[in-house]
Amino acid sequence: MVKRFWADETGLPAADRGLAYGDGLFETIRAEGSSAPWLDYHLARLVRDAARLGIEVRQDELLAASGEALERYGSPGKVWVLKLILTRGAGGRGYRPGACMEPNLLASCSDAPPMPDSAGVVVEFSSVPLTVNPLLAGIKSLNRLEQVMAARELSGDCFEVLMADAAGHIVEGTRTNLFVLTDEGWITPPANSVAVAGVMRQLVIERLQQAGEPFREGSITREQLQPEVCRGLYLTNSVLGVVRVRNLAGQDLPAERCLATICRLSTTLE
Amino acid sequence: MVKRFWADETGLPAADRGLAYGDGLFETIRAEGSSAPWLDYHLARLVRDAARLGIEVRQDELLAASGEALERYGSPGKVWVLKLILTRGAGGRGYRPGACMEPNLLASCSDAPPMPDSAGVVVEFSSVPLTVNPLLAGIKSLNRLEQVMAARELSGDCFEVLMADAAGHIVEGTRTNLFVLTDEGWITPPANSVAVAGVMRQLVIERLQQAGEPFREGSITREQLQPEVCRGLYLTNSVLGVVRVRNLAGQDLPAERCLATICRLSTTLE
Repeated sequence: MVKRFWADETGLPAADRGLAYGDGLFETIRAEGSSAPWLDYHLARLVRDAARLGIEVRQDELLAASGEALERYGSPGKVWVLKLILTRGAGGRGYRPGACMEPNLLASCSDAPPMPDSAGVVVEFSSVPLTVNPLLAGIKSLNRLEQVMAARELSGDCFEVLMADAAGHIVEGTRTNLFVLTDEGWITPPANSVAVAGVMRQLVIERLQQAGEPFREGSITREQLQPEVCRGLYLTNSVLGVVRVRNLAGQDLPAERCLATICRLSTTLE
Repeated sequence: MVKRFWADETGLPAADRGLAYGDGLFETIRAEGSSAPWLDYHLARLVRDAARLGIEVRQDELLAASGEALERYGSPGKVWVLKLILTRGAGGRGYRPGACMEPNLLASCSDAPPMPDSAGVVVEFSSVPLTVNPLLAGIKSLNRLEQVMAARELSGDCFEVLMADAAGHIVEGTRTNLFVLTDEGWITPPANSVAVAGVMRQLVIERLQQAGEPFREGSITREQLQPEVCRGLYLTNSVLGVVRVRNLAGQDLPAERCLATICRLSTTLE
């Protein structure tokens, strides 16, 4: 049974393994009033990834806790972000977890970030390499030091930096997944190559497939992001939706078809 | 200025970045009464790695806090472990830290683990791959999910599991560094290849060099750990010292020269 904590009341216990080892997961969920449009997607991912880490939690108890959090922090007309941190709990012998651990869940709220310019954002390449353990690929775990180090490179009007893996493939931003439009159609890096497989990434894939758009998961090279080849580059994030990149590393990029229009994810995000 | 917290009183604030992103470091320090024999090594590493992450902290304030912690938790004759968690602090905008962050330091104590059998320990290979970001190599950060996943494989009398990188090189245990004795001399994987460059690893390298032993940093292959080639395999850890491996993945290993004897690190650890 998961134990609930409210961030406005207290932090997690000092011995929690989330702090000690990043032994846990988190979700940042866009909320409107007391509802969250993609809550089911977030909770399904949380339960699935918890199972991958061997953290035992049920979707119904997360749903109940989320409902309480939405009531607690939401108010009519308020657009905000609900953050859930789920950890394996406290204790164990060093890295090795105990046999019967009780997970902890910390809920907090924050203001929604400002929506980016609908004309598009300016993006750079990160100098921080991305390393993804195949066992942990796609999991939104609490091990996010690479993303922190890359985010330290953000300055001025640069909205995001894109990180490359050891092979030089462009995999994702610090807080966004990528979709590139080429002459072949839409491409996004495969789930087993990304550090975080975002909820908005999954939604966009579903919408592209429903719309019959040509789409595949595949590696993205720097060459595919050149203005001569690239027909459009988009960043996805469940709080911000779909964000068009208008300039990458000093080069203007075209935007032949707007992904947000194709996807029609939500009226508030288009 | 670092802000101190005692784990027996309270945990870190709910918004601490150590919990949120693993944005911090830790040290587990062997203590005897109210002193810690290798405290200087631990604090030097902590300050050096904090600088690598851009966390501003001074060695003198860590020394003062450690002194207080040793007084608070130590008692005559007690052998124990002082744990320090240093985080970047609370706040920032998502992954991106704020401009002026105040680091948090959480001190806790735990019982010293039982010393392993001096005749040697039983070790297996881990199925969890090790991925080391070159920017973070060697840093004892709070991002330790790979080690947690590997430690979940420990069972029965298995003392440790050894993790391999993508190239198949054997790099380290979950909580230990490796030294192998071959016909060429001692080898330990290079600092830029390990997830954690342990304090005991550094001490052993210094003692081997002082003793004029043939030593180099280099990759270790599975072949070099075969009984026909390997003259001895040792694990190092600052709480347990030097631990001989007597059996690796079902094969007995020789122990021609005992590293603990060569190193003479401490009377309590030999």
